[in-house]
Amino acid sequence: MTQSQSFEHLAIIGIGLIGSSIALAAREHGAAGLVTLYDQDEDVRQRATGLGLGCVCDDVAQAVAGADLVILCVPSGSMGAAGALIAPYLKPEAVVTDVGSVKAAVIEQLLSVLPTSAYLVPGHPIAGTERSGPEAGFASLFAKRWAILTPLDDPRPDYGDKVQALVGFWEKLGSQVELMEPARHDLVLAMTSHLPHLIAFCVVATAEDVEAVTDSEVIKFSAGGFRDFTRIAASDPTMWRDVFLLNREAVLDLLGRFSEDLTALRRAIRWGDGDTLFKTFERARRMRREVIEAGQDSDAPNFGRDQTR
Amino acid sequence: MTQSQSFEHLAIIGIGLIGSSIALAAREHGAAGLVTLYDQDEDVRQRATGLGLGCVCDDVAQAVAGADLVILCVPSGSMGAAGALIAPYLKPEAVVTDVGSVKAAVIEQLLSVLPTSAYLVPGHPIAGTERSGPEAGFASLFAKRWAILTPLDDPRPDYGDKVQALVGFWEKLGSQVELMEPARHDLVLAMTSHLPHLIAFCVVATAEDVEAVTDSEVIKFSAGGFRDFTRIAASDPTMWRDVFLLNREAVLDLLGRFSEDLTALRRAIRWGDGDTLFKTFERARRMRREVIEAGQDSDAPNFGRDQTR
Repeated sequence: MTQSQSFEHLAIIGIGLIGSSIALAAREHGAAGLVTLYDQDEDVRQRATGLGLGCVCDDVAQAVAGADLVILCVPSGSMGAAGALIAPYLKPEAVVTDVGSVKAAVIEQLLSVLPTSAYLVPGHPIAGTERSGPEAGFASLFAKRWAILTPLDDPRPDYGDKVQALVGFWEKLGSQVELMEPARHDLVLAMTSHLPHLIAFCVVATAEDVEAVTDSEVIKFSAGGFRDFTRIAASDPTMWRDVFLLNREAVLDLLGRFSEDLTALRRAIRWGDGDTLFKTFERARRMRREVIEAGQDSDAPNFGRDQTR
Repeated sequence: MTQSQSFEHLAIIGIGLIGSSIALAAREHGAAGLVTLYDQDEDVRQRATGLGLGCVCDDVAQAVAGADLVILCVPSGSMGAAGALIAPYLKPEAVVTDVGSVKAAVIEQLLSVLPTSAYLVPGHPIAGTERSGPEAGFASLFAKRWAILTPLDDPRPDYGDKVQALVGFWEKLGSQVELMEPARHDLVLAMTSHLPHLIAFCVVATAEDVEAVTDSEVIKFSAGGFRDFTRIAASDPTMWRDVFLLNREAVLDLLGRFSEDLTALRRAIRWGDGDTLFKTFERARRMRREVIEAGQDSDAPNFGRDQTR
């Protein structure tokens, strides 16, 4: 199998935002011939039918049988169960990957349930929105986004070819692919994704609990900055619960750092130390410019939200 | 003066994002006849000329002389200085307002420098982007946004008419106007704007300082959530330094609440308490729906950023 080849048969397990987007993108870009999908939730399977995703199967055996590539698109904490579910039906030499936001813990779950004949190449597309469910998917979700793969130390001579085939798959979907050690992935994502989400969830919860300010006041005047936190905090609660439980050490470590830094800013406010505040804010502004220059965000003000010139 | 009347002559002191946007909006909607502008920075005055804002004056006396409405659009910590600068040239009975993000402290500064003949009606439009400077302004910035006015206990019989005239001015610019006590404003905005900004600044600073993850890794994979924090944290450092110094008590109080709540989440992560995490995340999601329903944000996923269906 070479990088230019497509997978003949792609099976997607878990039909949420990511699973449905992969199905749409793979079909649009011809990255797979047949696309079969399965979700444990009957209601989700029904809603997924008719969205143009591919063949939604009522039976996991049918979805997986003969698939060259199986992508597990379930919350990180359910990867082991999903792997056990597909294990009996996997074609020998099938490539199995996942989209979990945590890698080391997911790999541990999957290695204990998958047959040794399968080729496990764990992955994580850095893409998503605050929406959930099969209806939330769209084909361009992965375009110009990073997809991280964390290959294992698999001694089989053709393991590298399987990795390259999966690299080619994500590139067909429009992604740039980065190979990384699982532990490094978990550390980097703890900073760029897990910590920001935890903090956004927490700010929104604090706002809801503060008795001195009513919820309706918070909502009414949320354009001052709060509304951006509500967007981040609208992401799937199950997925995020699993992320924090499974990437505990890295998240706790960074939370400690953040709390120290916040305490320093708090002290600067209490003592009227404007210089410390100004210097911190100036540094933050520089980082924004670098994110824009790296093509990781739109430079339209407000994400283009208020931009009607 | 009745609500339907426009101001004949509007003077804007401070030509940044807000000042230039007010000028453009007032001209577009006929909310003022003559618009004069002044900024202490000669470079800003030069850049502001030719943007269609109105008459950019090199002399504050000329900008203010004869104005019915003067709007101070400088950082909250410079309001006293700006008020002292305009005081000698104010027409008797001129309405003076401001756009400061903090009200009680700004009112204290202004009352000590403005002549008693002026009508001070403090204000704060809940609108802005992460951009700064005269070039950043656009006429629709205030459309469908809230503008808060915090009228004083001024015993003059026509003070109420002046407040109504200013209400009419903001409505012409497309805003909905809310009247509020200054202290209440400072508390509500501490929650909806000041705390979120401080936290965003802090997350970005923490990311920059963490040795284990390089800045380039943070930037590369910022689409996981971090990039939204960099947008909020890109706002004007001087403006925000002043906000935190001048609204110290309310911000410190809410910071204490937030830190407690974050410690509780940290504990839940450490002890593997998934229920607490899930419940907190579910609550946060509900708040998002209410923000959307209240018309305070776009419900396009990712603010419409990746939406190319």
